Amino acid sequence: MSKSSISNSVIRRLPRYYRFLGELENNGYVRISSRELSEKMGLTASQIRQDFNCFGEFGQQGYGYNVSDLRIEIGKILGLDKQTPMILLGAGNLGKAIAAHIDFRNKGFDLIGAFDVNEGIIGKEIGDLKVRGIDELSTFCAENKPVAAILCVPMGAAEKLANTLIECGVKAFWNFTHYDLKVTHKGVAVENVHLGDSLTTLSYCLNNLNNSEK
Amino acid sequence: MSKSSISNSVIRRLPRYYRFLGELENNGYVRISSRELSEKMGLTASQIRQDFNCFGEFGQQGYGYNVSDLRIEIGKILGLDKQTPMILLGAGNLGKAIAAHIDFRNKGFDLIGAFDVNEGIIGKEIGDLKVRGIDELSTFCAENKPVAAILCVPMGAAEKLANTLIECGVKAFWNFTHYDLKVTHKGVAVENVHLGDSLTTLSYCLNNLNNSEK
Repeated sequence: MSKSSISNSVIRRLPRYYRFLGELENNGYVRISSRELSEKMGLTASQIRQDFNCFGEFGQQGYGYNVSDLRIEIGKILGLDKQTPMILLGAGNLGKAIAAHIDFRNKGFDLIGAFDVNEGIIGKEIGDLKVRGIDELSTFCAENKPVAAILCVPMGAAEKLANTLIECGVKAFWNFTHYDLKVTHKGVAVENVHLGDSLTTLSYCLNNLNNSEK
Repeated sequence: MSKSSISNSVIRRLPRYYRFLGELENNGYVRISSRELSEKMGLTASQIRQDFNCFGEFGQQGYGYNVSDLRIEIGKILGLDKQTPMILLGAGNLGKAIAAHIDFRNKGFDLIGAFDVNEGIIGKEIGDLKVRGIDELSTFCAENKPVAAILCVPMGAAEKLANTLIECGVKAFWNFTHYDLKVTHKGVAVENVHLGDSLTTLSYCLNNLNNSEK
């Protein structure tokens, strides 16, 4: 099966498999059956077998999966064997927290720059990066060629900034704004983190939990 | 159709509809056709009609949707007409940024407390809340009856804390940890925000973008 025909829901499960196999490896597991893995992960064994079959033959009948091999293979599929240069746009509360919280190098990226428009933030340090003014963006991109960007800017600034970044060669956006990059720009990779939508979904789930109990 | 039979993917689209309708209302829209809404949102008109039909008859043939009415109805479905008391567990970088960044009252929640184990964080202020020590948690819950919690603690602390919170009456978790609450606890509402998995997914998408261009 070609990669492009893999469904979005399988792709969404891959990072979790990767993370889970890492934990198993740390706990000394050498191999695991799809049944045991399914019980630990709250999935069905047949779903796990189907998911892994999308990418090739990983398991062996009656033996199960080799934890380390499977993790390495999934890591390659996820592109974690590379480190794509990434920059942060918007180094306020949220941007700063994300930069500090995430282990970029283990997720396939290398955070090489941070930018803001706020004079009170420019020049401050985030980890080992000094926040630069947005006027340095084009020069920085020409010199350092970032391919990915984290958007942590206000909604109103997102469209113009996204256009500039794409002109500068950025092809992947980790988008924390509500600006709909997927709708306006084709041919770029976009992963939206809509924290507000996520909290709203929790409200629905809680509300529905209450309804189903009545 | 009963609420419990609504698919997860429809539920995931509701917050975006709600948000989008709010923007339309702010821009002076009184009504909108499913076709116009679909173009603006990058969905198909038939998907929009199907989604809204899950909850009842909102539109009118040849007239379209009344933007304000539809937004109010979706808001009710999402439970945004209530404000559920919520507490933050873990007031480090990420927890602090989330507390500052999110407009809880517009998402159906009211942030009433923040807790941490770190002596350097306890007593500090997040907005109008003072961070409390975790030893105050049970008393606080008995007095203030929070129903929802944000988990921003290290993975190792999540399991014990989740158990304590459930004993204290918490029924909804906005989970930023990798602890699999959905697998271990039934009968609670869980919304996971796995930032690391999200970034890993972006790596896959970028990698696949490159592959499809070759």
